[in-house]
Amino acid sequence: MSWILSAAQIPDLARGAAVLGTGGGGDPYIGSLLAAQALGTGTVEVVAPDELPDDALVLTVAMMGAPTVMVEKLPSLDEVVAPVHALGTYLGRPVTHIACAEVGGVNSTIPIAAAAALGLPLLDADGMGRAFPELQMVLPTLSGITASPLAFSDEKGNVGVLQTVDNGWTERIARVACVEMGCSVMISGFSMSGAEAKASLVAGSLSRCIEIGRGIGTAREEKRDAVAATVELLGGRELFAGKVVDVQRATSTGFARGRARVDGAAGAALVLQFQNEHLVAESAGTVLATTPDLIMVLEADSGEPITTEGLRYGQRVRVIAAPADERWHAAAALAMVGPGYFGYGMPAHRFDGSVSAADPTLTAAGSGAAA
Amino acid sequence: MSWILSAAQIPDLARGAAVLGTGGGGDPYIGSLLAAQALGTGTVEVVAPDELPDDALVLTVAMMGAPTVMVEKLPSLDEVVAPVHALGTYLGRPVTHIACAEVGGVNSTIPIAAAAALGLPLLDADGMGRAFPELQMVLPTLSGITASPLAFSDEKGNVGVLQTVDNGWTERIARVACVEMGCSVMISGFSMSGAEAKASLVAGSLSRCIEIGRGIGTAREEKRDAVAATVELLGGRELFAGKVVDVQRATSTGFARGRARVDGAAGAALVLQFQNEHLVAESAGTVLATTPDLIMVLEADSGEPITTEGLRYGQRVRVIAAPADERWHAAAALAMVGPGYFGYGMPAHRFDGSVSAADPTLTAAGSGAAA
Repeated sequence: MSWILSAAQIPDLARGAAVLGTGGGGDPYIGSLLAAQALGTGTVEVVAPDELPDDALVLTVAMMGAPTVMVEKLPSLDEVVAPVHALGTYLGRPVTHIACAEVGGVNSTIPIAAAAALGLPLLDADGMGRAFPELQMVLPTLSGITASPLAFSDEKGNVGVLQTVDNGWTERIARVACVEMGCSVMISGFSMSGAEAKASLVAGSLSRCIEIGRGIGTAREEKRDAVAATVELLGGRELFAGKVVDVQRATSTGFARGRARVDGAAGAALVLQFQNEHLVAESAGTVLATTPDLIMVLEADSGEPITTEGLRYGQRVRVIAAPADERWHAAAALAMVGPGYFGYGMPAHRFDGSVSAADPTLTAAGSGAAA
Repeated sequence: MSWILSAAQIPDLARGAAVLGTGGGGDPYIGSLLAAQALGTGTVEVVAPDELPDDALVLTVAMMGAPTVMVEKLPSLDEVVAPVHALGTYLGRPVTHIACAEVGGVNSTIPIAAAAALGLPLLDADGMGRAFPELQMVLPTLSGITASPLAFSDEKGNVGVLQTVDNGWTERIARVACVEMGCSVMISGFSMSGAEAKASLVAGSLSRCIEIGRGIGTAREEKRDAVAATVELLGGRELFAGKVVDVQRATSTGFARGRARVDGAAGAALVLQFQNEHLVAESAGTVLATTPDLIMVLEADSGEPITTEGLRYGQRVRVIAAPADERWHAAAALAMVGPGYFGYGMPAHRFDGSVSAADPTLTAAGSGAAA
């Protein structure tokens, strides 16, 4: 069922997207400003993937770079549409639909701005059901859909189009270009037919963001616990509550990397590790949850999501976890986005703390023990 | 006048190109292997720029990267033609002529391979009359010709096309992509009309390379001094003779950078500084020659050119200098390729040791003194 998105829904959508963005995807306020500006008094048609004609030409649109930089470099509308125009010209066919590559503060709203500026419908879907730091980390990669041709553009007017041998190479070349161009660029890629989009995307993402964002607001209005309401909506659980006492963060090779410590009651402490997104939550030597499941930091009272670049000493927070799209727990998916890929020495743990059975590092360890 | 280039002329051409390449542009032997393979028993038509129709579409073809890496990664013919195909598709017009961006061991012969493989005529011209380390450092840049659209490709099959706001940005983005892709890529860009090519290129480069390369061989056959013959042909002078006693070289940010010391008679020493190409020659605190004039290292007896990555302890060498195309001594040109750009603290010195009057660093120093 298609529906109409207007500027009035943007604040809820951006807030919900920042929750599902698991700390990454950029600042929701900045993303919502851009989308509201692009929508003005107009609207964008939002289409469910299963309504897509099979011969549609769907492109994802996203901002690539370190969120620490994105918050200081709000793109213009010209910059947002530049990679779509470049890619449309390269493909030599009219683009019919815009899709989100990931859910996140900026990367759920930038595609709205692009769709509004281009006069195209937007898919109620995204490539992850959350946010991840590298561009190949989308479910379409697992379906064999190529990131390239991928176009990228910066605020100066520089544009590039890549055609690479695999999605890992698209990431590598686009990332170094992104860093050289100022640590944030607009990208468009993963061109898909309607049939491919239906099969490989996570359906209902934008609706879900609005539902989550509105739920937080409604709970506050009704003096209910906004964090508990979010946990219930996501089918997740609350991992920890406490005060942020330490944040180590560096912007390196185009990512915001670091760790944060949250001190709780009775000497308990939680450590979060992140690379743009929260990837590991541990307490007292126990892994509570890891990528690909969702780890989110919310303001304790208001339930507002806090991005990894927004973490500050003294914040009272509650850390929650929720299940990822189940496709992320397949072995090939865990090889791409599991803790092992990011260099953390543990298998993937689901949001309830149990080990994700298909993690290839488990198999490797098993083989090692048997040999 | 157009003429026919066949495999028999390649060794002379490659040797002469390595002389004019001033230490850069890659290993002439590797370049000649590739050109000879592409030519086989066939030929390439070489056309003088003033014979070009005004509406020709000329593209330069070159290898970009560190010569230290190029010598270990000989490109395939598929890789050589890939950026030309990508750029032709991007421009949507048939390419009519191939040109050399610079003179150098590899970069004078790669375009021959491209022209042979594509069945296109080659211009008897290049963009510099020598070699320089960065892609914007060509005379067409000074005529306002844009490097982009510029295509790049690697041996894995990755291809990119850039459209940038100026030639400096083409260099910056292509360079980081090049480093990520393995420190050497094939590039094609600087698309020009026939009229633009006539006005901005250095005419006669390939003929001159063959003349220089043949001159070295003939001098040896006739038991004459091959170095002296080259100096005479170039209208230059011999700066120094001695033994290479120290070479410091590092491959960093995609360039082969370093310095070399040559010890001569009676305690005299010459220091060469290079970034892919030889850029400064000094002895006993006196600057003997700098970029943009040509500084070349030849084997003392045979007159064979030695590239910067080929410099070794113990080599008996003679260092010669020769005048650059006079357009390189204009103020705008010296700002782009003078010693100041490369971080050496001196104004440009011509091959005879005199200071190049237009060097903008001289003006800056003058203003500073007057203030």
